Amino acid sequence: MLIALLPGDGIGPEVVAQARRVLDAVCGDALSYETAAVGGAAYHATGHPLPPETLALAERADAVLFGAVGDPTCDALERALRPEQAILGLRKALGLFANLRPARLFPELADESALRPEIARAIDMVIVRELNGDVYFGEKGMRRTATGRREGYDVMSYDEDQVARIAHVGFRTAMGRDRRLCSVDKANVLETSQLWRDVVIEVSADYPDVALEHMYVDNAAMQLVRAPGRFDVIVTGNLFGDILSDQASMCAGSIGMLPSASLNESGKGLYEPIHGSAPDIAGQGKANPLATILSAAMMLRHSLGRPDDADRIETAVAKALAGGARSPDLGGAMTTEAMGDAVLAAL
Amino acid sequence: MLIALLPGDGIGPEVVAQARRVLDAVCGDALSYETAAVGGAAYHATGHPLPPETLALAERADAVLFGAVGDPTCDALERALRPEQAILGLRKALGLFANLRPARLFPELADESALRPEIARAIDMVIVRELNGDVYFGEKGMRRTATGRREGYDVMSYDEDQVARIAHVGFRTAMGRDRRLCSVDKANVLETSQLWRDVVIEVSADYPDVALEHMYVDNAAMQLVRAPGRFDVIVTGNLFGDILSDQASMCAGSIGMLPSASLNESGKGLYEPIHGSAPDIAGQGKANPLATILSAAMMLRHSLGRPDDADRIETAVAKALAGGARSPDLGGAMTTEAMGDAVLAAL
Ligand SMILES: CC(C)[C@H](C(=O)O)[C@@H](O)C(=O)O
Ligand SMILES: CC(C)[C@H](C(=O)O)[C@@H](O)C(=O)O
Repeated sequence: MLIALLPGDGIGPEVVAQARRVLDAVCGDALSYETAAVGGAAYHATGHPLPPETLALAERADAVLFGAVGDPTCDALERALRPEQAILGLRKALGLFANLRPARLFPELADESALRPEIARAIDMVIVRELNGDVYFGEKGMRRTATGRREGYDVMSYDEDQVARIAHVGFRTAMGRDRRLCSVDKANVLETSQLWRDVVIEVSADYPDVALEHMYVDNAAMQLVRAPGRFDVIVTGNLFGDILSDQASMCAGSIGMLPSASLNESGKGLYEPIHGSAPDIAGQGKANPLATILSAAMMLRHSLGRPDDADRIETAVAKALAGGARSPDLGGAMTTEAMGDAVLAAL
Repeated sequence: MLIALLPGDGIGPEVVAQARRVLDAVCGDALSYETAAVGGAAYHATGHPLPPETLALAERADAVLFGAVGDPTCDALERALRPEQAILGLRKALGLFANLRPARLFPELADESALRPEIARAIDMVIVRELNGDVYFGEKGMRRTATGRREGYDVMSYDEDQVARIAHVGFRTAMGRDRRLCSVDKANVLETSQLWRDVVIEVSADYPDVALEHMYVDNAAMQLVRAPGRFDVIVTGNLFGDILSDQASMCAGSIGMLPSASLNESGKGLYEPIHGSAPDIAGQGKANPLATILSAAMMLRHSLGRPDDADRIETAVAKALAGGARSPDLGGAMTTEAMGDAVLAAL
């Protein structure tokens, strides 16, 4: 099976390299790899953040392992050429509409969370974020008002099919867990959210065993601080999911720990750590590779049919943490490579 | 001077009643009051959540003290008749574009925060939220897609004048504090945010003494958990401000503690606790009135030119807390009225 490796910008190459070592150790020759440029790195090399060869490789591969994109030297470029367009373009082109972001605290890291340990320890949720719609992909641009002033605009929208398919993912995810689904919206203000809520309620008829609740996004942001342990599965739109999943990750310890899967209708997936490119620490061996290593485990489970290998990797990560492996974000001083070594040793 | 009292729904009347007692004790006959119905209460009484008499009173008064709106029995009404439209309508009709939400931890409450005490203790920030634009007030509705599917949509937008006037409030607020301003947007995805960022940078030329930084909203949601003490003043749009200010409030202890001011260009203001109507505990004497009492203090300072009275109230609240006053949200058992008594005793 072919894996597309897209290391990208900043710390992306460093963390992907460690995930590759772990995959080699676990899967040996069962997987083959091709690497392609993406993001600012691709722009600097080819003039475009998502070159056609990169997209073609991602389409051809059985799964994509992605590092990060984001490069401050590209800030002044027109939007279409910025690094972020590469990940947005991949999500759209591959139809990756379902973003699964598990957030749980490794018990070994209870002391790293900004939350009180007794609150942090209870965190064990999956955020299911819609990834192909919302204000991310609506019409947008700059225009002039009637009085000639500059105005920026972005259209937020969802249609019922988009909401229904992500709602099904949310309910199915809840069925495999504690059967509680919290749908997050802002239906007291947004028509997009009203449709979201209506359709989630319609879909809920297919899942009588799942307890469904609705929560406004401002309240959800509070509850994720106050009592994050109350959540099992959260399903929400692209924009709210972006904000809440990063917040939840920090509640669960370091953002350097959390993986994600972005899936399309046929189960093809792109796997990436939820941290970004972190240009401030790039190239210094300070990045925590565990989120990417755990993303590789999700890839084995969700796209490659190798759940046992996924379990092995996850167990090894927990063992490495228990053995004291700590990168700077976890309060330690181990390098990116040393963290990879620790996981390899624990396998 | 005339104060419009708009108690509203749920716990609104209970908390406003305590603020009124405190105002009476501090200002005596210097202030006069008129009360009007708003929100679900107004809908049930008159058929509209913001009756013309209520709006007229708010316009005539020197300041508005607001409780909360939100009533689950109104959930099925068309949008224009729902309780939330009352507060949105007041914000728009009175031109209340600048929402100031201070978040700081009363040292007495360090043990109530979900954050580790050493992290929570450092919190002392003001969130300046734009309140008259963004996706809240753009064109919105339900329509059909080309294939006949239901679609909800809401247009997000800001023009340069809207951004500039709230940016000035942000910079001026920072000038009166630690001179650090963090502007929060999602400029890597949204054109509205790109204009926001461009204009904030333009306005910054007038404030060379303020250190300005820009942060994406997803990162801001993380930093508010990880290191909230790093923020002095945050300026952001209506939607992001809604989410981040509720999150910040919870980091700073209970949402029952935090006041807010919504100001227009001439300094006229509406003052409200940032908690909502909390229908689940309404009428049981369990609500914490301190956020409303602190909102009244903000009213004395920002709209009524009585900063000394504002200081007196704030000092009394701190003293009451130091003396052990604790409503259920603060881990205690005191009633709403007993909390009011404690503040009165401390005056
Ligand atoms: C890089 C950016 C466009 C992206 C997003 O907003 O989706 C990132 O924040 C994420 O969450 O994957
Ligand atoms: C009630 C609701 C419309 C309102 C808002 O979203 O602005 C509330 O959440 C707030 O923050 O004041």
